[in-house]
Amino acid sequence: MTLAYKDQILTHEKIFRDPIHNDIQVQHQVILDLINSKEFQRLRRIKQLGTTSFTFHGAEHSRFAHSLGVYEISRQICDIFDRKYSIQNDPENGWNDNERLVTLCAALLHDVGHGPYSHTFEGIFNTNHEAITIQIITSPETEVFKILADVSPDFPEKVASVIRKDYPNPQVVQMISSQIDADRMDYLLRDAYYTGTRYGTFDLARILQVIRPHKHGIVFEASGMHAVEDYIVSRYQMYMQIYFHPVSRGMEVILNRLLHRAADLYKLDPTYYDNQMTLLIPFFNETYSLNDYLRLDDGVLNTYFTLWLDDSDAILSDLAKRFLYRKPLKSIQIQDLANQELCLKLTSLIEKIGFNPDYYTAQNTSSDLPYDFYRPDQDHPRTQIELINKDGSLRELSKSSALVAALTGQINRDARFFFPKEMKEHRETTNLFQADLEKFTTLLKTT
Amino acid sequence: MTLAYKDQILTHEKIFRDPIHNDIQVQHQVILDLINSKEFQRLRRIKQLGTTSFTFHGAEHSRFAHSLGVYEISRQICDIFDRKYSIQNDPENGWNDNERLVTLCAALLHDVGHGPYSHTFEGIFNTNHEAITIQIITSPETEVFKILADVSPDFPEKVASVIRKDYPNPQVVQMISSQIDADRMDYLLRDAYYTGTRYGTFDLARILQVIRPHKHGIVFEASGMHAVEDYIVSRYQMYMQIYFHPVSRGMEVILNRLLHRAADLYKLDPTYYDNQMTLLIPFFNETYSLNDYLRLDDGVLNTYFTLWLDDSDAILSDLAKRFLYRKPLKSIQIQDLANQELCLKLTSLIEKIGFNPDYYTAQNTSSDLPYDFYRPDQDHPRTQIELINKDGSLRELSKSSALVAALTGQINRDARFFFPKEMKEHRETTNLFQADLEKFTTLLKTT
Amino acid sequence: MTLAYKDQILTHEKIFRDPIHNDIQVQHQVILDLINSKEFQRLRRIKQLGTTSFTFHGAEHSRFAHSLGVYEISRQICDIFDRKYSIQNDPENGWNDNERLVTLCAALLHDVGHGPYSHTFEGIFNTNHEAITIQIITSPETEVFKILADVSPDFPEKVASVIRKDYPNPQVVQMISSQIDADRMDYLLRDAYYTGTRYGTFDLARILQVIRPHKHGIVFEASGMHAVEDYIVSRYQMYMQIYFHPVSRGMEVILNRLLHRAADLYKLDPTYYDNQMTLLIPFFNETYSLNDYLRLDDGVLNTYFTLWLDDSDAILSDLAKRFLYRKPLKSIQIQDLANQELCLKLTSLIEKIGFNPDYYTAQNTSSDLPYDFYRPDQDHPRTQIELINKDGSLRELSKSSALVAALTGQINRDARFFFPKEMKEHRETTNLFQADLEKFTTLLKTT
Amino acid sequence: MTLAYKDQILTHEKIFRDPIHNDIQVQHQVILDLINSKEFQRLRRIKQLGTTSFTFHGAEHSRFAHSLGVYEISRQICDIFDRKYSIQNDPENGWNDNERLVTLCAALLHDVGHGPYSHTFEGIFNTNHEAITIQIITSPETEVFKILADVSPDFPEKVASVIRKDYPNPQVVQMISSQIDADRMDYLLRDAYYTGTRYGTFDLARILQVIRPHKHGIVFEASGMHAVEDYIVSRYQMYMQIYFHPVSRGMEVILNRLLHRAADLYKLDPTYYDNQMTLLIPFFNETYSLNDYLRLDDGVLNTYFTLWLDDSDAILSDLAKRFLYRKPLKSIQIQDLANQELCLKLTSLIEKIGFNPDYYTAQNTSSDLPYDFYRPDQDHPRTQIELINKDGSLRELSKSSALVAALTGQINRDARFFFPKEMKEHRETTNLFQADLEKFTTLLKTT
Repeated sequence: MTLAYKDQILTHEKIFRDPIHNDIQVQHQVILDLINSKEFQRLRRIKQLGTTSFTFHGAEHSRFAHSLGVYEISRQICDIFDRKYSIQNDPENGWNDNERLVTLCAALLHDVGHGPYSHTFEGIFNTNHEAITIQIITSPETEVFKILADVSPDFPEKVASVIRKDYPNPQVVQMISSQIDADRMDYLLRDAYYTGTRYGTFDLARILQVIRPHKHGIVFEASGMHAVEDYIVSRYQMYMQIYFHPVSRGMEVILNRLLHRAADLYKLDPTYYDNQMTLLIPFFNETYSLNDYLRLDDGVLNTYFTLWLDDSDAILSDLAKRFLYRKPLKSIQIQDLANQELCLKLTSLIEKIGFNPDYYTAQNTSSDLPYDFYRPDQDHPRTQIELINKDGSLRELSKSSALVAALTGQINRDARFFFPKEMKEHRETTNLFQADLEKFTTLLKTT
Repeated sequence: MTLAYKDQILTHEKIFRDPIHNDIQVQHQVILDLINSKEFQRLRRIKQLGTTSFTFHGAEHSRFAHSLGVYEISRQICDIFDRKYSIQNDPENGWNDNERLVTLCAALLHDVGHGPYSHTFEGIFNTNHEAITIQIITSPETEVFKILADVSPDFPEKVASVIRKDYPNPQVVQMISSQIDADRMDYLLRDAYYTGTRYGTFDLARILQVIRPHKHGIVFEASGMHAVEDYIVSRYQMYMQIYFHPVSRGMEVILNRLLHRAADLYKLDPTYYDNQMTLLIPFFNETYSLNDYLRLDDGVLNTYFTLWLDDSDAILSDLAKRFLYRKPLKSIQIQDLANQELCLKLTSLIEKIGFNPDYYTAQNTSSDLPYDFYRPDQDHPRTQIELINKDGSLRELSKSSALVAALTGQINRDARFFFPKEMKEHRETTNLFQADLEKFTTLLKTT
Repeated sequence: MTLAYKDQILTHEKIFRDPIHNDIQVQHQVILDLINSKEFQRLRRIKQLGTTSFTFHGAEHSRFAHSLGVYEISRQICDIFDRKYSIQNDPENGWNDNERLVTLCAALLHDVGHGPYSHTFEGIFNTNHEAITIQIITSPETEVFKILADVSPDFPEKVASVIRKDYPNPQVVQMISSQIDADRMDYLLRDAYYTGTRYGTFDLARILQVIRPHKHGIVFEASGMHAVEDYIVSRYQMYMQIYFHPVSRGMEVILNRLLHRAADLYKLDPTYYDNQMTLLIPFFNETYSLNDYLRLDDGVLNTYFTLWLDDSDAILSDLAKRFLYRKPLKSIQIQDLANQELCLKLTSLIEKIGFNPDYYTAQNTSSDLPYDFYRPDQDHPRTQIELINKDGSLRELSKSSALVAALTGQINRDARFFFPKEMKEHRETTNLFQADLEKFTTLLKTT
Repeated sequence: MTLAYKDQILTHEKIFRDPIHNDIQVQHQVILDLINSKEFQRLRRIKQLGTTSFTFHGAEHSRFAHSLGVYEISRQICDIFDRKYSIQNDPENGWNDNERLVTLCAALLHDVGHGPYSHTFEGIFNTNHEAITIQIITSPETEVFKILADVSPDFPEKVASVIRKDYPNPQVVQMISSQIDADRMDYLLRDAYYTGTRYGTFDLARILQVIRPHKHGIVFEASGMHAVEDYIVSRYQMYMQIYFHPVSRGMEVILNRLLHRAADLYKLDPTYYDNQMTLLIPFFNETYSLNDYLRLDDGVLNTYFTLWLDDSDAILSDLAKRFLYRKPLKSIQIQDLANQELCLKLTSLIEKIGFNPDYYTAQNTSSDLPYDFYRPDQDHPRTQIELINKDGSLRELSKSSALVAALTGQINRDARFFFPKEMKEHRETTNLFQADLEKFTTLLKTT
């Protein structure tokens, strides 16, 4: 008698050596098949942090590695829940290990819809990586779907619902998506390791000691409060120090302008650019299929940028050069109305010097809400982090931690105005523009 | 009065945060300009370890990061030499700090000629990354050349001669190229960190304590013997465990076959493939310029492979699929004549099943000589590692270390025969070939 | 001509291999001689964290190791100040490297007056490790004094004044004693490493990049704000998680009671205990000399405790057993008046069961102020941490950091009532007291 | 119904935070009771590496921490064996989890008989830590015995037989004592961490992946050969670099001479020294009981040394000073007969200068056999390390590894002659002896 596909356990577990988790252990044939699917393998060619590696050159890790890491943390949590808090022993709050496979599949696949430089790309081409993740999981043409459907006909939809957060078991949903989930825990540790900074480091081992299933989702023993607090603080610091870094954003802005310019040129003369952007055309035309999307990766975009280096359009080739050879736009912080006026003045000087401001300036705001408690009146209220006392009562995290309280509900925002570095570097310019440049510099000093 | 370009020191040193060296410190304007050159920035898009990341998914680091690391180790050695062993104090064996800039430039640029998947690519298109490195440094059209020539007209040639190992000062040459040089020290530590293995770890801090300039090159205080020994052992272990890994080579073989197939098809019908391989055509035609070479990177190759997925040639599209979706060829070790006969038998069975053996089999040998002493009768005798005693006498390393002696002059070789994994996986095949597959499996068991 | 003692630099710098700083580099003969002095060597026999190793068994490191670490951080700061901010280049705010030796000596010796289990010991015997530190530095009978006086007759007094914080140069004083000094930076990193927790980890390398001398002391470039913030947060977490740990304090309370009991018994019958506490007698008599003090270490106290195991006094031998065999008192948090009443009730039950509450109960409060700005109206106003903007203006840290602001001026306090664990463990007691124990347990539940 | 004592599992597992293993997990009440026994707690006061911390100041960790670590590695191996290789699935080679408790107890207690500075102490007082370990486990007066006997009357003897290596199940014996056992694996990692060197680092996670039970004991999958090889090499390097360090041995020699002098003086006048060495007297008289032994620890010895500082015997007080204030004897390597003659000459000069050579010189040899295969003709043949191939055949390690082969059967020896550093330092001596000192120095140069 052969086992059902979902129950097939590898005779030798498959080990992926990983710098963060040491060993990532794959035990199910289903998981191994998903990893080997073409949609998942594609994640090897998409950097986890996009333009951040222009600032932190070590951060060249892929979404493939992160996805394996999210899987591994989820697997460890399932093991802990099953060993310590099985539903057999605690029918009210315990963990039902039948949820393991759907959890692991959702953990592994939660980012499978990401494309190259997602944030920028989505802004321009109106794609959405979350919607595409669901599509990859539920569309009959994908390998991922076929594997999931082999588990049971309704299994793809179940995995999708975990990612959509409408799966009925809140323990499963919160393990994958909440303010302290396997996704965030992996990316903080991984991004810290690969950037070579230490801010993202927190005590995962301690958190795994105090994590517990609960009928309302996932909670943490109160004795582990400081480990959870440290995780929130680490996350906040990674945003402030790494993810918001103005140089990475100076590159992101160039990428945005470059793709915009290409789209604009394509609209003017579709035939001319045909062979210089084959794989992008469905997106310029807004007629792309899932298959078109799955052909894109960081290297594909970069390859077209390389071809555009020699393009006859001066703006296209200049922006391509700035992106490929890392010439970020410079920036200043802008925060209030006074600055808005300043931006206008600066923009007009930039134009005067000869830069088309549509392609050489930008306002760009990074923002993050490090933590919030549940606010039922909001559109997307957050699941708050709950500590559980010895008597079983729950206490929301910020009530126990002065540090978390200081961050709760406080959106951190970094608004910046971006402009060509030529505006600050006099040496390459002629006397003709000297006065304008000096005026620009003087204006900067007022900020 | 302005300083000469070579003497321009940055008012704020530029820091590159690095996971291996913590901070990489750039102090010279020349070095910063080289890093910002387009030829150097291109190294961001070329993985240090090629197909190894298919086995160790964390090892996605670039040659850019490694090159910065080699620079940093060299910079630290220069600092140590200048502080502790200046030629002012020791005219016979001391370090002349006027050599610093040429050393740092050579360290930074030693790999600047690498292209995508160098080993495979060079085998097929007859390019040579070392020759191209020299070309980038000495060709008037490159940004690198212009920067170096701004130091002094003969400076590019000086940097090139360090890399060619014919620079007169052996201290400089050996810091960049010897059996224990800044290059190897960085890649062992970096590859260990990024793969998540620990074999490559050795005690760099201790080696930097005992490293010394000498009129004949670079030597190490005898008291630090065990640190040097450990470095040699670590290097050996990295080769055996990481660099020789059969799965990475199973991917390398596919890459090789894929590029061969493309070249073969192009020869048959150049016009058909024009738009599907634009940037590769100069290489198919063997008419490439330096500029053509500098447009290539990992992403460019992968992009063409993506386009080839839909090619009408079944072999081209199948091999592209195997490469992009990571379906490595399987392998067995082969070592002697008996195995050669076996290979023939296996090849004939593979052909019988329907695979063209020109594209679906390969013999591939990895080999490394972990260490050797100077053998004057050889074509390229190695500079041996010398320990220096308190009385100033020198002693070759393997004479002091039983471990190193065990590795000295012993070439490690791993010869393998590669074949499609379908030959071992019965489930997907029809009964028609079952007998052949079983015969194949039986033959494998005899190895 | 021989060099003055203060200028004698070791021909080979002496390296102390250290897990935190990798290499501790000693360059001055003066420093090496101080390390080899008997007063400094004695620190090897005094644990840095006292009873904390009863909770975190890895934390067995000595004050010797920590003192070397403070020296090393100070040395690195001197190097950075001298290289980047020399007074030659910046007469207003720069660093005068003539201050190096006094700084390094003060760094090395700042804790040389610590005795065994300082906090407890000082409470009982009215000693003071800071006063004794000054005494060791300035008393003609010590080796430390002789070495310092060899530098110049007024040098011991100069070193002492740095430690007393009345040395005229605020850069020197603040490097050793401020809210972000070499002392704190070393102990956080070291205690985190040895306990095996990660809370104390912060980015020392980054802090050393942004630290700067200033005419008013030491400041940090504003761009490094998050590294300084992270240090404050790490320090806070170490206090909450490690230094305040109730089990370590349950051992500290036993130590306190044990020494009290010995003192009480000695007063009753000095002759009886003569040979069982030889080295402690000067302290019982309050007639101790510096030399008496310098003979004490952790092992001396423990040795007397071992001898007391067989003492005829039941309380003395029982408390010695509890300390040597790690039987901490249990505790509950107490915070307000209601709890004070509770303590009285609990104490009376403890007495009823048969424990003398003078020796078996305690109230113990740990408290810490993580950070504060300068409050001129206070008795000991704190030197606040200043960030320096590019234009040279200063900004107090909590104004830039929400996290630090949340901690500023907020004293963290953990007040506890300690009692024998027998009060919670019924199994070892007879029925006679069962009712009292149950009452005790019931009272605990009300907290 | 209450569970048998051996089956009592803690409702919350007890966690010991450990820098090497992160968390040490205690699940059995028996193990927790053993840890809390007075014989085991005593290990907190005995340094793992004795005089090594005089060379590597970070290495102040105790035998308590190491013993917990050996327990933890054994626990992890039991978990792996039970999960992957249960005897239910493999009756021939599998692991019987009923062996778990005896294994864990033996792992925890394998060093419980160690005393202060064991190697030196045993040489002088004819004690033996292995015999005492067995005694602690099997003597009715100890707490350890009582706990073990509560499991079952024959359980103490079973645990003892594991440590004596005559327990019938070779899997259990080899996990605790073999050439690659939990003991060695923990101490290499721990000593590397605490010394701050990296030589002892090997890939424990990989070894735990490939370790397997076998009817003849414990074997390792051949695919993990390089991890096992790396462990052997690491062990070799730790011996050469750390454990053999001549400065630590220069302190060990002083300790030896000091205890000898005390014994000699006691024999001359037992009454005089009574109160100055109370706890040592049973050992001077060779009448010690187990209880006498259990009162000793590092601090007790150091306390007597402190008292001896003021002794009227000049040699006793001088040696005590040298030990407490770290004034190691210097040494030279001696290897052959020529050196023996040299030692005689040096000794006579040392005596001439005024040092009693019985107390101020020594010959001391450190030796280690890094690995050997089974040699049935030897007195204590070693259990060789076996690799297991996929077909189940075994292959002895050195047959697969050139590095291990180079170390196999090769005893490493470092023989040294120790003498007072005054013999090399002219400055403190009078002209009277100048000629002798110069002769001494000249003789040293001939070595």
